Amino acid sequence: MLVLKSNEANFKDEFSKLVNRSDMDMDSVMPVVQSIILDIKKRGDEALKEQILKFDKWEVKDNLAITEDEMKNSYDNLSDELKHTLKLAYDRIGNYHKKQLEKTWLSFDENGSALGQKITPIDKAGLYIPGGKAAYPSSLLMNAIPAIVAGVKDITVCTPAINGNVNELLLAGMYMLGIKKAYKVGGASAIGAMAYGTKSIKKVDVITGPGNIFVATAKKLVFGDVNIDMIAGPSEIGVIADDSANAYHIAVDLLSQAEHDELASSFLITHSEEFANKVKDKIYKVLPTLERKEIASKSIENKGAIIISKDLNESITLMNELAVEHLELALDNAYEVLPFIKHAGAIFLGHFTPEAIGDYLAGPNHTLPTGGSARFFSPLGVDNFIKKSSIIAMNKKTLSNLGNDCMLFAQTEGLGAHKKSIEVRVKE
Amino acid sequence: MLVLKSNEANFKDEFSKLVNRSDMDMDSVMPVVQSIILDIKKRGDEALKEQILKFDKWEVKDNLAITEDEMKNSYDNLSDELKHTLKLAYDRIGNYHKKQLEKTWLSFDENGSALGQKITPIDKAGLYIPGGKAAYPSSLLMNAIPAIVAGVKDITVCTPAINGNVNELLLAGMYMLGIKKAYKVGGASAIGAMAYGTKSIKKVDVITGPGNIFVATAKKLVFGDVNIDMIAGPSEIGVIADDSANAYHIAVDLLSQAEHDELASSFLITHSEEFANKVKDKIYKVLPTLERKEIASKSIENKGAIIISKDLNESITLMNELAVEHLELALDNAYEVLPFIKHAGAIFLGHFTPEAIGDYLAGPNHTLPTGGSARFFSPLGVDNFIKKSSIIAMNKKTLSNLGNDCMLFAQTEGLGAHKKSIEVRVKE
Repeated sequence: MLVLKSNEANFKDEFSKLVNRSDMDMDSVMPVVQSIILDIKKRGDEALKEQILKFDKWEVKDNLAITEDEMKNSYDNLSDELKHTLKLAYDRIGNYHKKQLEKTWLSFDENGSALGQKITPIDKAGLYIPGGKAAYPSSLLMNAIPAIVAGVKDITVCTPAINGNVNELLLAGMYMLGIKKAYKVGGASAIGAMAYGTKSIKKVDVITGPGNIFVATAKKLVFGDVNIDMIAGPSEIGVIADDSANAYHIAVDLLSQAEHDELASSFLITHSEEFANKVKDKIYKVLPTLERKEIASKSIENKGAIIISKDLNESITLMNELAVEHLELALDNAYEVLPFIKHAGAIFLGHFTPEAIGDYLAGPNHTLPTGGSARFFSPLGVDNFIKKSSIIAMNKKTLSNLGNDCMLFAQTEGLGAHKKSIEVRVKE
Repeated sequence: MLVLKSNEANFKDEFSKLVNRSDMDMDSVMPVVQSIILDIKKRGDEALKEQILKFDKWEVKDNLAITEDEMKNSYDNLSDELKHTLKLAYDRIGNYHKKQLEKTWLSFDENGSALGQKITPIDKAGLYIPGGKAAYPSSLLMNAIPAIVAGVKDITVCTPAINGNVNELLLAGMYMLGIKKAYKVGGASAIGAMAYGTKSIKKVDVITGPGNIFVATAKKLVFGDVNIDMIAGPSEIGVIADDSANAYHIAVDLLSQAEHDELASSFLITHSEEFANKVKDKIYKVLPTLERKEIASKSIENKGAIIISKDLNESITLMNELAVEHLELALDNAYEVLPFIKHAGAIFLGHFTPEAIGDYLAGPNHTLPTGGSARFFSPLGVDNFIKKSSIIAMNKKTLSNLGNDCMLFAQTEGLGAHKKSIEVRVKE
């Protein structure tokens, strides 16, 4: 595991490698993803079925749709405890996202003219939920609930199947959420189908959801023909801690990110060298006890870093440069530090907020910007499932007041009909 | 000019061509745009200067930067009337966009834990403003003001120059807005430079602004490495009108869109055949009087359409399918129709709201989704220049209440360290 000290000569160079950590080589997979999408555009379901055989390694016998019976059976088979957990997550995620709802507004001037902004839900949303080895039913909740809260009436879910079978908890989640359209198709194929439509899978307006580099590349390619949430890469955590934190807890938090994926990144920044050493020790003690120790080890070795800063201010500055997906402020005075955090997908405050609580049921979304893109992307939320329209309602009085200036502007830009459209209303 | 009646046999086919009107063939320009961007990544300013010589046809002698003196001189040379117009536009656009500002919020539970959402301005925004033949200083205001309102401190403007000279009103606008970083570079080169940085032009986080197909393709390619506003194509207007509207006014409004660009689209939907005929007559009467009659004629002939519907309800349904950039409701009861408009970039209500007022100084943004993308894109606004971070602050009580469910969820997803990160905090 990399350990860097900010006062060492090579620190700037080494740290800038972490800042520029995003290494999704989309160019290399672009041609295959382009051909997958092109084939779906041309041959629809036939192409999809061939792609499923080729990439997901199972043969679609009848159709791609997941039936409501499959969903209901899985839900009925859940333990009462799991039903409770799903419901609790649904309620808490729903309550948080309801706070994100914006309202249509109108603002009148003294003459009775109005300006405003209208909020309308997206008609059709497509959610991509990874399956296979890393099936995360929580991702279904995190993608579907903001869409439901936004008021989207037509939701399509695509997820890859293993031998035609979909993760049971995912199916149960679909039932609880009332998903009516769900299909067993994964990867770039799913994105292409939802973006352009086939006979089975109808075209949507917005596609959201996590996925591997093929999914990310497909989302980038279809962007503009549909909207997408963001281009996301491997998951990551950053922790700012001082001696007030528990080194064992922080070690487990860093490992909880590392266990996701060999490419996941874990960063600790602390101005206490003693604390840094304690965390490192604990990481290597806990690692062998994990079920996913092989993945976590590779992640910690290749993508983990402990940075020893000179003080808390420097820790904050460095963490802002990293712009991580998940940021824990494991400090007694976390609230006081919060205003100075500029770039992070989600911020976890204090000693009792492990990142994992945000993955499942704290309430906020777990689909977050990665690889430094927290500088400009936001968490998935209701915003991704609505769009806005500006409203302008003039009357003769207001238009007359603004008319001369507007006509002068139009004339200066050389647009005569623009000018005339004002003139005919205010001069005649 | 195409005239369609909704009760004719071939209507559905003909109308669906209008719905699927987006015909930006990005694939054909992709290779050249890719090579432009790659060259900028490799050779920075040297590549930029060569590209300017090749595409913009002038030789950069010293550097690319527009000086503050150039801006100030242009501003000082403006007439008092134009200064007044610029200031009025600035104030009105500013006041509208201030209403879009969202606030950071925190919401506490009964145990004192908190969930929230933090709003942070983007650090660095890059604005692309077209120049050359179609230099629209209004686009500078429409892109810069939301960034300024959002709180962006570092704004870069790129615009193409003709023989090294930039439109005077654009320069004056930069001075008024307090723009400090502006460069004479256009097209895909400008997008590549702002996305990846050169010695002269620093990398930004978000790129917004209109442009031709090369600009649109470049924006799509850099998306993910930076955020962008939207992928926009030629401008368009849709008008829903009945006999309460003035045919002459509506004809001028349709022409005001047509004069922008040969590829601009103008649609009128009305259930009054008599009104439709009047508008058509007026269009052909006004056309020859326009300064930009050649552009407007081609646009009206190839991209204009009048649709005669059976009633107002059908007009609304059809217009929602078109999902136009600018939508005029030229009706006495425009406010009553407003709730039923689902897809439009900006909505202009009543008989005294010509689209042109929104281009300059009504207040709302004139950068709007085109080609049907109003189904999922929103107007440019403050949202494009901020990003959000989720906030989670648990204490032991709340974490303990949620702990068992969260651990069960983590365990079901097979993530042991996730479970452990809760366990160590609530069980020990």
